[in-house]
Amino acid sequence: MSILSCPLPLPATERILLAHGGGGRLTNQLIEDVFLPAFANTALHARHDGALLAIGGARLAMTTDTYVVQPLVFPGGTIGDLAVNGTVNDLAMCGARPIALSAGFILEEGLAMETLRVVVHSMRDAALVANVPIVTGDTKVVDKGKGDGIFINTTGVGVVLAPNAIGPEFIRAGDAVLVSGDLGAHGIAILSVREGLEFEGPASSDTVCLWPAVEALLEAGIEIHCLRDLTRGGLSSALNEIASVAGLRITVEEALIPVSEVVRGACELLGLDPLYVANEGRFAIFVADEDADRALSILRSQSVSTSAVQVGSVYDHRSGIVTVRSRIGGNRVLDMMSGEQLPRIC
Amino acid sequence: MSILSCPLPLPATERILLAHGGGGRLTNQLIEDVFLPAFANTALHARHDGALLAIGGARLAMTTDTYVVQPLVFPGGTIGDLAVNGTVNDLAMCGARPIALSAGFILEEGLAMETLRVVVHSMRDAALVANVPIVTGDTKVVDKGKGDGIFINTTGVGVVLAPNAIGPEFIRAGDAVLVSGDLGAHGIAILSVREGLEFEGPASSDTVCLWPAVEALLEAGIEIHCLRDLTRGGLSSALNEIASVAGLRITVEEALIPVSEVVRGACELLGLDPLYVANEGRFAIFVADEDADRALSILRSQSVSTSAVQVGSVYDHRSGIVTVRSRIGGNRVLDMMSGEQLPRIC
Repeated sequence: MSILSCPLPLPATERILLAHGGGGRLTNQLIEDVFLPAFANTALHARHDGALLAIGGARLAMTTDTYVVQPLVFPGGTIGDLAVNGTVNDLAMCGARPIALSAGFILEEGLAMETLRVVVHSMRDAALVANVPIVTGDTKVVDKGKGDGIFINTTGVGVVLAPNAIGPEFIRAGDAVLVSGDLGAHGIAILSVREGLEFEGPASSDTVCLWPAVEALLEAGIEIHCLRDLTRGGLSSALNEIASVAGLRITVEEALIPVSEVVRGACELLGLDPLYVANEGRFAIFVADEDADRALSILRSQSVSTSAVQVGSVYDHRSGIVTVRSRIGGNRVLDMMSGEQLPRIC
Repeated sequence: MSILSCPLPLPATERILLAHGGGGRLTNQLIEDVFLPAFANTALHARHDGALLAIGGARLAMTTDTYVVQPLVFPGGTIGDLAVNGTVNDLAMCGARPIALSAGFILEEGLAMETLRVVVHSMRDAALVANVPIVTGDTKVVDKGKGDGIFINTTGVGVVLAPNAIGPEFIRAGDAVLVSGDLGAHGIAILSVREGLEFEGPASSDTVCLWPAVEALLEAGIEIHCLRDLTRGGLSSALNEIASVAGLRITVEEALIPVSEVVRGACELLGLDPLYVANEGRFAIFVADEDADRALSILRSQSVSTSAVQVGSVYDHRSGIVTVRSRIGGNRVLDMMSGEQLPRIC
């Protein structure tokens, strides 16, 4: 126990920083230095949004996420529907239909019961839309000042419907990179209410269940190579992780990346890059180039991905990096996020 | 959002209290008033330690628990092995062999990396003993002063091996009530280190994986009616929940309930009743009276339940209450725990 009451100040690198939870470089370092060596197994090493399990004849996916967003209620959602949609979406990114969720609550002593009710009701509504039951749960209460209102863990189990394996290791040179809609709305919505900022228009979170869009692609027989929801760290971190695992180069065209006027204006004002801002209802899809048009038309027929577009391609260049071609024609490396851009956005 | 900044003081009943997380009466009220009405589904309504799911040909169990114990390291364990054993045990209580765990961490900014390593290594060791891989995970970081070092959610999936349904609704009049060992060690161990108390001997947590004991009963063909681990709220809360669901009376003999000298001394000193103190490696087993002796000899052959004993029986009295026959022959009702005895013991 002596380590818990260590009297000597530790160097910053030996302490947890907010950025260790930001989804960027430090999060990756924590996973690679601490978690992967301890929990070594093939499912975990795949570094996918969820783990694939073969049980009897069933192919299952399992995924977990803990939600610590502040404020608990924000334009377009609450921590409750975020907790349902986020975990359902991680299953969807495995090509899996969600079949059961668990919910684990950490409540802070003194929390208004009415706030809990609002959050629980938004979870119920999101679970109804996603058509997934919350089958088991747990509640803990921590002393006032040792929590922050409500934290929620949701863990999901789904049945994999994709006929082929989906993941970063299956992208190929020539693949088209699609995104399901405009980027950055969730992060900007959280920031607007947290900082009391007003932008050119209302900023509202994009939190939504993405399974219908994935299901439509699968039902149409589109061979999906990789799916990734664009949460913490945004498009740039997602593409960097994928390029790194695949050992291929991904190039995106800045002019093709959809960003709303409100998000663009807010990012300019705040000095943020929308490619690093978190989304909770957007995802990237990798398909063979010849399937791209059909995949786009299927995505556009679904209400959660009406403005899907192709933003780039995969190249046979064994570098594992992401480059972006700017509006004026130059190329730059799109790095993984360093440090913490917007803490606690999910 | 106005509810989040409600300017009026709320009555205590409209705020979350520590006791809402204590596993007793207020926890039950919260579940019945807030969670069950919102998330209505048959699996949740079973109020079992885990949910049963039929997927393809497989019978699965799923369970979740969040761990907020303080201190993070205590005599006999850490929050890490507690998080593995606790969830594995909830699967075991469904008659299910654990096959996969998820781990969701909430870390407080400023946490010493070495503390995280100690906890993660104890999770690894516990997962190796339980023979269950940690297949997926998530890490969030909250600002200093908005958490308490480390909170961990673990969610488990298991394959149900029990041939018959196990649960409170399947106990029958005449059943024997067995417990797997001496009670109260975990709660007293936490209390001793938290309050800096010294008792007659060292108090050490009983945290352990219970699956081998359940597996041995199943392999021997014992028909188990109900299993329940004796965590928050101790033996009394577990038996009250079971009696209430079954609508039968459970009677236990005080003289038969195993309590170590250290725990008995500590409870006397502190004015606690060991029947309400939490355990993390003890469980109750309900079997037909004619199977009791064989079940006990199987349990005693397993290292985690060497001192298993019968402590009581089920009676055909449609009251749903628990009574205890004292050493001097009197009978009293053993109520469900009210309020909070030992906050944050798991």
